[in-house]
Parts: sequence; structure tokens; C-alpha cells
Amino acid sequence: MTTGTRKRQAPKGTRDFYPADMAVRRHIEKVWREVSINHGFEEIDGPTFEHTDLYTVKSGPGIVSEMFGVFSGKDEAELEELKRTGRAPFALRPEFTPTLARMVAARAAELPRPIKWFSMPTFFRAERPQRGRLREFQQWNADMLGDESPQADAEVIATAVDALERLGFGPSDVQVLVNDRRQVSHILRSIGIAEEIFPEVLALLDAQDRLTDDQFRRRAAELSIDIERLNSAFPLPARLRDVHALKGEDRWLSESFDLLRELQTIDLDPQWYAWDFSIVRGLAYYTGTVFEIHEASGAERAIAGGGRYDKLVELFGGPPTPAVGFAMGDVVLSLILRDKGLLKPADEYLPRPHVFVISAGDEPAEKEFRPLVARLRREGFHARHSYKTTKNVGKLLGEAGKARAMFAVILGRELAGGHVVVKDLDGGGQREVARGEDWHGLVASLHAAVREREEAR
Amino acid sequence: MTTGTRKRQAPKGTRDFYPADMAVRRHIEKVWREVSINHGFEEIDGPTFEHTDLYTVKSGPGIVSEMFGVFSGKDEAELEELKRTGRAPFALRPEFTPTLARMVAARAAELPRPIKWFSMPTFFRAERPQRGRLREFQQWNADMLGDESPQADAEVIATAVDALERLGFGPSDVQVLVNDRRQVSHILRSIGIAEEIFPEVLALLDAQDRLTDDQFRRRAAELSIDIERLNSAFPLPARLRDVHALKGEDRWLSESFDLLRELQTIDLDPQWYAWDFSIVRGLAYYTGTVFEIHEASGAERAIAGGGRYDKLVELFGGPPTPAVGFAMGDVVLSLILRDKGLLKPADEYLPRPHVFVISAGDEPAEKEFRPLVARLRREGFHARHSYKTTKNVGKLLGEAGKARAMFAVILGRELAGGHVVVKDLDGGGQREVARGEDWHGLVASLHAAVREREEAR
Repeated sequence: MTTGTRKRQAPKGTRDFYPADMAVRRHIEKVWREVSINHGFEEIDGPTFEHTDLYTVKSGPGIVSEMFGVFSGKDEAELEELKRTGRAPFALRPEFTPTLARMVAARAAELPRPIKWFSMPTFFRAERPQRGRLREFQQWNADMLGDESPQADAEVIATAVDALERLGFGPSDVQVLVNDRRQVSHILRSIGIAEEIFPEVLALLDAQDRLTDDQFRRRAAELSIDIERLNSAFPLPARLRDVHALKGEDRWLSESFDLLRELQTIDLDPQWYAWDFSIVRGLAYYTGTVFEIHEASGAERAIAGGGRYDKLVELFGGPPTPAVGFAMGDVVLSLILRDKGLLKPADEYLPRPHVFVISAGDEPAEKEFRPLVARLRREGFHARHSYKTTKNVGKLLGEAGKARAMFAVILGRELAGGHVVVKDLDGGGQREVARGEDWHGLVASLHAAVREREEAR
Repeated sequence: MTTGTRKRQAPKGTRDFYPADMAVRRHIEKVWREVSINHGFEEIDGPTFEHTDLYTVKSGPGIVSEMFGVFSGKDEAELEELKRTGRAPFALRPEFTPTLARMVAARAAELPRPIKWFSMPTFFRAERPQRGRLREFQQWNADMLGDESPQADAEVIATAVDALERLGFGPSDVQVLVNDRRQVSHILRSIGIAEEIFPEVLALLDAQDRLTDDQFRRRAAELSIDIERLNSAFPLPARLRDVHALKGEDRWLSESFDLLRELQTIDLDPQWYAWDFSIVRGLAYYTGTVFEIHEASGAERAIAGGGRYDKLVELFGGPPTPAVGFAMGDVVLSLILRDKGLLKPADEYLPRPHVFVISAGDEPAEKEFRPLVARLRREGFHARHSYKTTKNVGKLLGEAGKARAMFAVILGRELAGGHVVVKDLDGGGQREVARGEDWHGLVASLHAAVREREEAR
């Protein structure tokens, strides 16, 4: 029964998020969102699929070859075209930047500057799934447009670092590696490489880590690049904590190091970042600063990547608009969080019930029990109860504890006198509370207790 | 330049969410999420695309004809098959229930009962976009599995009503219309309609509102249904607030009214719901309770729809698992919220900055200003500042007010004495605060002020 088995599985490279998986995803998303908002970014989103030509324009062949095609079976003309050419009118979004550039271009006249936007939807790549790479993944994007100063680059990098810090990382865990395409171009020019092949050379440099020495040499030869000369143009240790000493040398384009001064100005701990001449990024549209965030020892793929793309909005019909931003995916990030022991057991990210209502089983309690649960929910409490038939209060308290409830409300014999027992499941104490008319007494008491518990965190 | 224009637009029937649009979407999503959690549901998610055959199994021809196909251009075999048949291996999810049933079936043995799950991703239908219908939309799903009692149906309906109430609706705005497929089947059987054609008859009854009288008669004739007899079998006003009187009549299946007793038990205001014999739902998989939520006067399409689907998990290879749930989309909901005046101006849903930092322009202030903003963000504040060059404090306070900041921190001459001015932008008062060593004084003062402001809401 192949079909039967296949029906029970998510497509290869996609994920089912059961409650504990989802709670971890929401934990990461919450950090991303809070940090974005604190740093003055506003949330946006675009369609899950776009016209295919949005990506063929500028994403570069690496991404275009890995897109999922999308089509409506209802449109006969589209279907005929698809059958003939194998090309679909739409593509699942492989990245966010083209959507962002399109949205900015469409409303360029009315948007106040700078534009600071973030988003965190899912993206799609038709790659072979492997460690750190899935076919559907979530990705945080933060972009600042309309500000060409290195201050904007520094703001964007500080935002990424703030998120890493709140997730529990320190500079000994992860590193922001910075470079500047202008710097790299300056060096390439200085050793006589023609501007026309810069895109191919940058793509080759970006791929260097993933190629064997042999493959690298072959591709360099195809571009007629003298590898010895290339290597001697970058004679330094790849990662530099202090590049200021370099400024005097005339082979360096000093202004491309201004980002570092800005990072110092805003007091970002210099242990977080280093200059790395080998970071060039694969995407075609970067024009200045480029950076990647890596696990400190170099394990795994990049956690995040970004840079300055000052020409892209124009390409989508907008006015000249300087822009800088980054994207951080959830897949590699989660792997490294787990490796560093920075994720609690998944269940602990599930929302805690405020109250677990227990009926001790006698007549009035049984009658009041379900309306009370419904009432507490309408009052804004996360309220649970057992669906089991047992009336054993000890067992039910066990279930309440397992659900990580803060308080148990026990409807027992005290109900005859207008009281219920409220038990603190963290501290262990318990007290009788007057239900009050229409349960107002209990509701007020629980509101106060829950607020106190939440403030104590 | 057709291509140029098209590149600047989202595909037909999809949406760009600029910050204000996104803030409204997050407002609705927040209500959905909080209500789900309060009612004991846990969040899940599945892939954005699934194997096509997941839907062909049981979603019914209405949905299958409106699916978007998805394929990887990299897989040669898949591409050949697609070119030959026009059928894609994957489909963008048109609804959530098949994914849910697949996920339950895959882990049926280890999941504790009842299973109470919710989700709120986006879904896709390749329909002609029209009022209330888009090609990509967001939808809240809440489902309870493993409990066959009418209590589960009532819990699920109470969850939907709680969300409607928190969004600002009352029973005079929207109505939950309830029916039971067993009841309808009982009536059809009683007038001699054969069980084999029940699916077609139910689909016809569901479509009745959307068909002309002529179309309806023609399709009824195709099924050899005597319309006069059908009408006389449902002789009552469609919406009944009190069906208990009906229980005596032997043409009614009394136990299918038990849901109403359960809704009374949990004290749900009876003004919220009515029995409506015309609600049957289009999807093939419902087996008992069915319900829709409509604008009270009948304007617009349904806001939500749901029901009991006790056979679906088995169909995906799981054990027999009773199940009940609903889906509420964002498109019709937003239309009706807007029509009833229940949405504030969109900007008011944007997160409020806690603090707007202003430099009055003299030397020490200019030097301290950007590190302070960065510091406040690291301390967890939503902190903003102006990117304009003006040092006019009045103008900058105007910008802070427009951004809806709670407090302004003004770095002025007081800085020489170790103080800054904190201005309350809601109340208008202002006071000098000692910055303290490493800004600790200001940070502590702002934490207290922001907490107080947020508690006052």
C-alpha cells in the first residue's frame, strides 16, 4: 500500500509541527518579532507564490534552478503553456527580497523614509533535503531602506545580534562575519580581473568552501583567473578583529571599513563580529556590505546572511533606494540552539494553563463544573479540566500538574458553604475562596493570583 | 512594458500586507490564538503543500477542481509526468482537515485523548477572486478529536463564539447556525431518497442559496427528487430558536438535538445560535453536527463552517477517531468587522514605541544619543529616534507623537548635570531623571513607567 503510506507522510523536506515542535517554533518567532519591534522595524508579508519572472530578473541562477512551480489547473491557456514548456506562471517564494523590493517600488512615493520592515513567513527551495537544508523553512527578514549610511548597516547587524543574544547565544557560540563587496571588487580590479566577470568570480569565491580544491581550480581556470595572484591579493588571516591597522595600505578601500566604526559607536560588543574577506554571498544583487552569521567553530551552514543591495528597488521600477537587510532561517538556527543546549525541553515552551478545574464528584460540584470552566475561559483564563471519568482528586491534581497548570480550583464539599479550594500548583499552598455571586469572587481572586505569578517570572 | 507592470503587482487574488494591513491581520490572529489557548487547544502546523492525493481522497470535487498544482522543476520524471497529464505531484493546501487527519493517523498510538489542536496558516484556492473570496487567505482551524459526545461539539462552538465576542461582535451581528447531517439523512430517508445519492443531494442542498430556482429544479430533476415532497419534509421556518418542542414528533431524530442541551449546560447565551435545517455544508466528510457562522442578516458568505467528521482519520490509516472542528477565514471576517465598525484605524494596531529618544543637538547629547538608543533596545524597550537632521525639539516631539510613543527621552543641557528629561506623551507631564551609572537610573525609571502604562490598559 505505497499510496496509503505516502498519504500519511508530509512531502519530503517539509515538516509537520506537532504541539511541542510548534511551541519551539513560536519561541524563536517571538524573539525574532520582539527584537524587530524593539529596533523599530514594522511587520509586513507578501504572497506565498509570486509571478515567476519576479525571481528570474535578479535572484541569480542558483535560486531560480531550485524553485517550485505553481499553476492553477483551471486556467487552460496556462496549462497548455506549462505542458509545452515545463515553465509555470508562478513560483513558491524562494526568498523575500524580490517581494520586498516590489512592494517598496509599488508605493515608493508615499512611504516615509527610512523604511524599516521585517517579516517571518515560510520559503521554499526544491533542493535535496540535507542537514540544515529543507524544502520548506521559516525565515526572518529585516530590511532598512532609504538610508545609505553605514549607520543603517550597523543598525541591521545590531538587530540580528540582539536576537542571537536573547536566544541565549554569546560571541563564543556564534560570530558575525563582515565584508564589503566594494572591497572585494577593489582587490579584483587591482589584480586585473575584468569587471564583466565579477559576478562569476564572486559566485566562485562564495562557493569555495563547498568545492574541492580540484573543482575550485577548474572553475578558476575557466574564468582565466590566476589563483596564486588571487591568493596573494588576500594575504591576511581571513578573520580580523582589528582592521583599522589596514587603513593605511593603499590596496584597501578604507571607506568600506566605516561599518566597523559605526558598530563601535553603538557599543556593540566587538567580540560579536570580525572582518572576513572570504564572505562574499552568492546572491547577485549585493552592492556593498555583506555579512554572514556562523557557528563560531565553522560547523554547519550560515545561520543568517545579508548585505546592502542599493540597486534592487530601481530594478523593480522604483526610485533609486539604498537598502540593507538580512535573512535568518529557522533550520540551521534550531540545530545550533540544540547543539549548544539552549533549548529547554519542548513541552516547556507550551503555554501554561492558568487554572485546572476539578470536580470532587458530588452532585452540586458535577453540576457547576462545566459551566465554571466555560465561564473562566470567557473571562480570559487559559482553563482546563480532565476528560477522564475519575473523581479521585489526587489523580486529577496529578493531571493538572502534568499540564503545568498554575492553579487548581477544586469544587468539593466546601461548595455547600459557597466556597471552593484554590491550590497553588507551583508553591503547594491552598486556600478557600468564596465563589461570590455569579462566581465574581473566584474570578477576581484568580485574576490577582495569575497576574502576580506572571509578574514574578 | 506589460512585464514591468506585472512585476510590481502581487498575483491576482493574493495580498501584499503593508505594516498597517499586517497589524490588523495580527490583531485578528492574536484573538484567534488567545481564545484557542484559553479553551485548551494546542497549536500545530503542517506543510504548505501536500501530496495531491491527500486531497483527492476525500475533500470532494468542489475543492479538488480549485487546487493549485506544485512541482519541482528539478525532478525530470515528475516534469515529464506533468507535461503528459497536466497533473502535479503536490498541491497548495486548500484546507487543513486532511493534513490534520494525516498527522493524527501518523501518531495515533502515542497521542493522549482528547486531541485539541488549532492552527492558523494560509490556504489556497484557484478560484476567480471576488468579494469575500481570495486565492490565498488565512484560516483559523480548531479541532477536537477522540471525544464523540455532544459536549465536544458544544466546546468547539463555544470557542468560535468566544472569538467572535472578543472581536467585538454580539448576537445581533452574527449567528451560529446549527444542523445535523444525521437529522437531514433521517428526513431524506423518510421521503424515500436512496442512501447512495445522499452525497449528491447534500451537495445540492448546500448549493441551493447560490443557484437560481431553475438551476435548482434542473439538478433536483437529474437526481429524480420530488421537490414538493422535499419541501414538505422541512416544513418549518429555517431558523429555530427552540427545537425542543420538535422532539415529540417522530420525523425528528431527537438525539441529534443533544448539542443544544450541551450549549445550555455551559451557559452559552442562546441568542448566539439557532437551528437551521438548511445548513448541510459542502464537504463530503461530515457525519453529524454541521454549523456555519453568518452575518445576522445573511449578507456575505459564511464567516466560518464546521462539523463532525468521525470517519476521516480512519481513512488516512488511523484508528476510528471521532472528531469535530471548524475553520474561520480572515477575508469574510474582515469585511464584516469593517462593515460593523469593529476595526479601529489600522495604524492603531501597530505596536506602540515605549520610548522616543531626542537629542537637543549640543555636543554631549549628540555623542550619547545613538549608543543610548542601542542600549535601550538591548534592555528590551521598543525604542525609536528620528532619522531627520533637525534638532528642533518641538518638531521631534511631534514625530514622537505621530509614532504613538509612550515616552520621550530628551538629551539636553541637563545632561551636563547627569540628568535627562522624560516626557509622558500620553499625559503630557515631564520630569528630570538621573541617568545613573551606565544609564542604570534611566533604564530602571523607564521600566517602571512602561509597566505602569501597560497595566493601565
